[in-house]
Amino acid sequence: MAGRFIVIEGLEGAGKSTAAACVKDFIASLNVQLLHVREPGGTELGEALRELVKRPDLEDAPAPMTELLLMYASRAQLVETKIKPALAADTWVLGDRHDLSSQAYQGGGRQIDQHLLEQMRDMVLGSFRPDLTLYMDIDPVIGLERARGRGELDRIEQESIDFFQRTRARYRQLAATDSAIVTIDASQSIEQVQHDIQQALQHAVGQWQ
Amino acid sequence: MAGRFIVIEGLEGAGKSTAAACVKDFIASLNVQLLHVREPGGTELGEALRELVKRPDLEDAPAPMTELLLMYASRAQLVETKIKPALAADTWVLGDRHDLSSQAYQGGGRQIDQHLLEQMRDMVLGSFRPDLTLYMDIDPVIGLERARGRGELDRIEQESIDFFQRTRARYRQLAATDSAIVTIDASQSIEQVQHDIQQALQHAVGQWQ
Repeated sequence: MAGRFIVIEGLEGAGKSTAAACVKDFIASLNVQLLHVREPGGTELGEALRELVKRPDLEDAPAPMTELLLMYASRAQLVETKIKPALAADTWVLGDRHDLSSQAYQGGGRQIDQHLLEQMRDMVLGSFRPDLTLYMDIDPVIGLERARGRGELDRIEQESIDFFQRTRARYRQLAATDSAIVTIDASQSIEQVQHDIQQALQHAVGQWQ
Repeated sequence: MAGRFIVIEGLEGAGKSTAAACVKDFIASLNVQLLHVREPGGTELGEALRELVKRPDLEDAPAPMTELLLMYASRAQLVETKIKPALAADTWVLGDRHDLSSQAYQGGGRQIDQHLLEQMRDMVLGSFRPDLTLYMDIDPVIGLERARGRGELDRIEQESIDFFQRTRARYRQLAATDSAIVTIDASQSIEQVQHDIQQALQHAVGQWQ
């Protein structure tokens, strides 16, 4: 079976790790190779950028455009050196965040112009897109409560609740208009969330065959 | 007198440091404040990116698009947090490299599409441009010989002579079509180079007054 690129998206505390475990179990049942990557990061260079962009102690915090360019630098490196070669070798790729995060966080949260973001995406990625994105939808009040329970917050997680409300609104708007994005209600019980993810995967794989 | 942004450009070994000393002397004679910055770098974040982009030992060398995005991330940060605030406070800014380096190295050297580069520049910088660019023109065979005399070469300096010939050709092409770029023949004696730079600066300042 040809390699597919599946991405998990959502706010902090939306349960992306639980969702990833669920996707990995499903992919394992298909008897295909799997590469699991995260953004920003996933390459030596990308992980260095991840550390840089999340540092809360920089003398000069990244300007919104700087942050956007760093996210795309990490993404360009990951896509060119890891994801595309894996897919070409029929390996499936599971991404913890991808381009939709930039559209939602930088577009919704930081309010960078949507047209500029789409232009940037097309310049850097061309027509490369995930085959399926699972968007874990959660109210940021609940999500951040969960994330805080895990320890200290990084620079981006320290943003205001308004920032995350705007990010969520953009996620929902984009998910509603793209058939390759499936919205999962992450406020449900873990069992129900797992059930919904399995259903979405089965439906997608059925279409790909 | 309102702040002005003057940039020195050119290949490795073209004598940019000598040119910078000359520009600094001239600006000092005008009794204005001066901020001297370099690219990539010039901010805490930018200097970290400079180190990253020049590292010869990365497991995954930056893909051409990654390198371009890192250069623009450094530039966006420098322009937003240092250069624009300085100019707004009537401080003059002397830049060791700026956008023309991306147009020449990534466009000429790495052969990234020129239209894409112009689009990236306009997205990141809008209409922000240097008031004057001094392009130090040198045959790369001579320039690299000088640069090698200074010690170990970084990742970019290890490129082939063809890479630098293409970079020089793009520099010359862009300089020929932009009246804000003055080409200085860097193969001349230091005295003649200094004379040509002073003349270019006097001419520019005369126009700005």
